[in-house]
Amino acid sequence: MKPLVFNNTVLRDGHQSLAATRMTTAQMLPAAAPLDALGFGALETWGGATIDSCLRFLNENPFTRLDQLKAAAPRTPHMMLLRGQNIVQYTSFPDDVVETFVRCSAKHGMDVFRVFDALNDARNLRTAIRSVKAAGKHAQGAICYTTSPVHTPEKLAALADELVAMECDSICIKDMAGLLSPRITYDLVKTIKSRHTLPIVVHSHETAGLALASYMAAIDAGADAVDTSVTPFANGTGQPDTVRMQAALAGHPRETHYDPRALFELRKYFEGVAAELTKFMSPANDRVDSDALCYQVPGGMLSNFRTQLVEMKMADRFNDVMAEVPVVREALGWIPLVTPTSQIVGTQAMLNVKFGRWKNLAQATIDIALGKYGRPPGPIKPEVLALARKQSGQEPVTGRPADLLAPRMPALREELATKKIPPTDENAVLFAMFPRETEAFYHPKAAAPAPVVVTPVAAGNASLNPPPFTGKISRYALTVDERRYETSVEVIN
Amino acid sequence: MKPLVFNNTVLRDGHQSLAATRMTTAQMLPAAAPLDALGFGALETWGGATIDSCLRFLNENPFTRLDQLKAAAPRTPHMMLLRGQNIVQYTSFPDDVVETFVRCSAKHGMDVFRVFDALNDARNLRTAIRSVKAAGKHAQGAICYTTSPVHTPEKLAALADELVAMECDSICIKDMAGLLSPRITYDLVKTIKSRHTLPIVVHSHETAGLALASYMAAIDAGADAVDTSVTPFANGTGQPDTVRMQAALAGHPRETHYDPRALFELRKYFEGVAAELTKFMSPANDRVDSDALCYQVPGGMLSNFRTQLVEMKMADRFNDVMAEVPVVREALGWIPLVTPTSQIVGTQAMLNVKFGRWKNLAQATIDIALGKYGRPPGPIKPEVLALARKQSGQEPVTGRPADLLAPRMPALREELATKKIPPTDENAVLFAMFPRETEAFYHPKAAAPAPVVVTPVAAGNASLNPPPFTGKISRYALTVDERRYETSVEVIN
Repeated sequence: MKPLVFNNTVLRDGHQSLAATRMTTAQMLPAAAPLDALGFGALETWGGATIDSCLRFLNENPFTRLDQLKAAAPRTPHMMLLRGQNIVQYTSFPDDVVETFVRCSAKHGMDVFRVFDALNDARNLRTAIRSVKAAGKHAQGAICYTTSPVHTPEKLAALADELVAMECDSICIKDMAGLLSPRITYDLVKTIKSRHTLPIVVHSHETAGLALASYMAAIDAGADAVDTSVTPFANGTGQPDTVRMQAALAGHPRETHYDPRALFELRKYFEGVAAELTKFMSPANDRVDSDALCYQVPGGMLSNFRTQLVEMKMADRFNDVMAEVPVVREALGWIPLVTPTSQIVGTQAMLNVKFGRWKNLAQATIDIALGKYGRPPGPIKPEVLALARKQSGQEPVTGRPADLLAPRMPALREELATKKIPPTDENAVLFAMFPRETEAFYHPKAAAPAPVVVTPVAAGNASLNPPPFTGKISRYALTVDERRYETSVEVIN
Repeated sequence: MKPLVFNNTVLRDGHQSLAATRMTTAQMLPAAAPLDALGFGALETWGGATIDSCLRFLNENPFTRLDQLKAAAPRTPHMMLLRGQNIVQYTSFPDDVVETFVRCSAKHGMDVFRVFDALNDARNLRTAIRSVKAAGKHAQGAICYTTSPVHTPEKLAALADELVAMECDSICIKDMAGLLSPRITYDLVKTIKSRHTLPIVVHSHETAGLALASYMAAIDAGADAVDTSVTPFANGTGQPDTVRMQAALAGHPRETHYDPRALFELRKYFEGVAAELTKFMSPANDRVDSDALCYQVPGGMLSNFRTQLVEMKMADRFNDVMAEVPVVREALGWIPLVTPTSQIVGTQAMLNVKFGRWKNLAQATIDIALGKYGRPPGPIKPEVLALARKQSGQEPVTGRPADLLAPRMPALREELATKKIPPTDENAVLFAMFPRETEAFYHPKAAAPAPVVVTPVAAGNASLNPPPFTGKISRYALTVDERRYETSVEVIN
C-alpha cells in the first residue's frame, strides 16, 4: 500500500483563510523547527496572499521571510501557491516578470511551486511552469475545482493531460470553495490516476464541512497527499486540521503516524498566535457554512454580497440577485467563482437586477468576455460578447493574454533606481506587483506602526475596560470571549 | 441498491447538544409540519434530557409536548431516547416504573424507542425493550460506542447479538462522544450486518469533526439510516446537518433527495429560534473540538474538568489528572466516558492526584466498583474492589441492579394523591424521576417566570446600549456578533 503524506498549510493558507493572512514571520519562526521535524510532505510557507500582506500590513520583506523560514525549517520541502501569469496578483504580468519571480523564489529556497489559473486556462500556467523546471524545482500543476455543466470530471482530467504535457512533477486538485463531494473527488482522482502515474495532491477547505470526507474518498482512490493545517488555523474556511485528519484514518490501511504529542504542542503554540491575531479572526469563520451548499457559491462571497446590497439599497433583492448569479456565470462561460471572478460575477448580477439584464456591463465583465483573463471554461454568450465589443470598441483576445504584454524587467530596474530602491530582481518583481507598497517599505513616510498585539484580558465572559466617562463620545476596548473589539459609544439622547 | 434514510434529531438531540435542551414546544410546533412533510425515517422528538428540561426549566408537561408534536407531525414515526432501566434519569428504577413509562409514552404516540445503557449491560435494557414490544412499538437497541482495549468491534457486535435475541426491531450504533472513525464504523457495521438482517442506524456527533466521514463509511458498509439535524442545531457537538450530509452524498449510488428548498426554509426558521436561545448556545459549541482527539475524552468533559480543577486549586495539575483518567477508567472496567460516568471517572482522577492513588474513593466510584450501575465492560481492578467493599461494608451486586428494587407504582400513586397531584400513570412516572420538579409544575409557589427571549439588536459588530453613567457600578447589555451579554462595570481607579 502506497504511503500517504500530509502537507501542512498553517504558515500560508491556514492563516490566509482564517486570520486575513496576518501571521507575522516572528509568529511563524518558533513553529518552523517543530513543523520541520514532523516530516510533512511539504510545508506551504509562502505565496498566495502572504506576499501582498507582508508588504501592505506587516512591514516585512517577503523574501526575508522566505530566507528565515527556510533556515528554520531546512529539512521539509517548502511549497508556495503561484497564480500562474498573475504571479501573486490579480492581473497578467509579462513573461520576463514571471520568470524572474520564479527564479528569485527558487534562489531563496522555494522547492515546490503549486501553479494555478482561476480559469483553468493552461496557457496562463505555461511560463510559470517552464520557469520552475528551468530552476530545477518541483512544478505542481493545479486544477481548480468548481461545479458547472462544463466542469465534468472528464474535462477537469483533460487539464491534467495538459499539465503532464507541460512536464509537471505532480498535480493538485485545488478546491478553493470547499465544494468537492466525496464521490466526485473519488471519480476525479481515479480518472487522472487511470491516465497518469505522477503524484496527486488534494487541497480543499472545510467551508461547507465536506473536506475531510472528500479527502477520505481521495485517499481511497489513490491520492498521494492531502493538505492539512493546525488548529486554530484549520477547519472552517481553512483545511482540515492534522490531528483530525489523522484520527479519521485510524485503522485505515494508509493511516499516518505524525507525532500526536508534537502536534498537540504546535496547536497550543498556535492558539497563542491566534490570541494575538484576535481582531483578524472572524468569530464564525471556523464553522461549517452550509450557505455554500444552499446557494452553490463560496461562503465568503455571500457576506460580501449582503454588505454590497445594503450599500446599494438593494437588501430586499437578495434572492433575485442570487438567482441571477448562475445566469451571469453561464453567460461568462461558467467561470469559477473564486476571487476575483466571484466579485465580477456578483457585481454583474447586481447590475442586471438593478438596471435590467445586460443593460449595464461592468468593465471587468467586458474584460472577461473579451478573453483578457484567459479562455473561460465554456463559450461566452453571444449577446454579452457583442455588447462587450461594442462598448469597449475592442476585439476579443484569442491568444494567450500575456502575449500582448511587452517585457518589463529593464524598465522596472530603472524605475527602482530612480526611486532609490535597491534595483535587485527581488525588488523589481515586488515593485511590479505592489508598487506603492514596495516603495513604502523602503521609504516609509512615517515610522511604521508597531504590530498590533491584542492580549485577551479575560476568557469566557464579557469584560469592559471603560475610560472615565467624560464626554458625548467614549471609546471602549471590549473583550468578549477572548475577542477584542475597539468600539466607540455615542450617547444620542 | 438499498435506499438510505435520514432521521432528524433537531427537536431532541439537536437542541440538547447545542442549546442546553432549552427549545420550547412553542418553538418546535411551527417546524413540526415541514419536518413531517420532508419524509424522514423518524423524527426524534422526545426523551433524553428533554423531559427533565420541560419540568425543570420550561414549565411544560412533557406528555403534552408529545401530544402536540404528534398531532402536528402525524405522518413520520416519532422517536425517543430511553436510558434503559434509568428511563430518562441517571439511576435505576424498578421494573414497574419502567413498564409504566413506556406504556404511557406509547399511548401518547411514541413510535420508535431507542434504548441504551451507558455500560452496554444488556440486562439494563431488558425491561424497557420488553415493554416496547408489549406496546406493539418499534424497539431499537443501542450500542454505545467508546474506545478502550475491551471495546473491540467483535465485543460491540456481540451486544448486537443480545439485542437481536431480545427481539429488537433495529440496532443503533450510538457514538455519544463523536469518537467513531470511518474505518472502525465500516468494520462495526459490516460485522453486525454479516450476522443479522435487521436495520442499522448510526448516530454520531461532530464534536471531533469525524461524524460525516464516519456516516459515509457506515453507508458504504450498508447502514440503513443515519441521524442528521438542522443548522444551527447541528454540527459541532450535535449531529451533521441534513443539507451537508445530503451534499456529501452527491453522486453516491445511495444519494438522498430531501427537498433542498424545504430544508433551507427550516434552517431559516431554526436560526430565528437559535436567536431566541442565544444565552444557552455556547459560542464555541458548533466548532470542531480536537481536544476530544488529543485527550481521547469527550469535549464537554474537559471544560468541566478545567472549572473543577480551578475550584480545587489544582489548575497546575491538569496534565497529571488527564494522565490519571485512563488509569481510573481501566480500574473501573473501562467504563465509557459519558454522563454520568465521565464525571465519576474525572472526579476520581482528581482525587487520586490530590490525595494519592485510591487513597480517597468517591461514593460513585464505590458504587460503580460494586456493580450498582450494572456490569462494566471489563473487570474491576481487585485493589479497588477490595477498597470499595471495605469502605462500604457491602458486597458487590452480581445480578441485575434493578432486581434489588421493589415495585413503586402503588406507592407513587398514593404519594401523588397526598400531594394533590392528579394520580395518573403519567404523573407517577414523572414524579418517580423528578419529584420536586413535578410537584412544582402542579403547585408553583410563585408565578412561573416568563420565558427569556433575547432579541439581537445588531449583527456583525459590537454595539453598546449604555445607560447614563451615574455611579461606580454600571450595567450594560452588550450585543456582539448577535450574542447578548449582560455585564456590569465597576470603575476601580
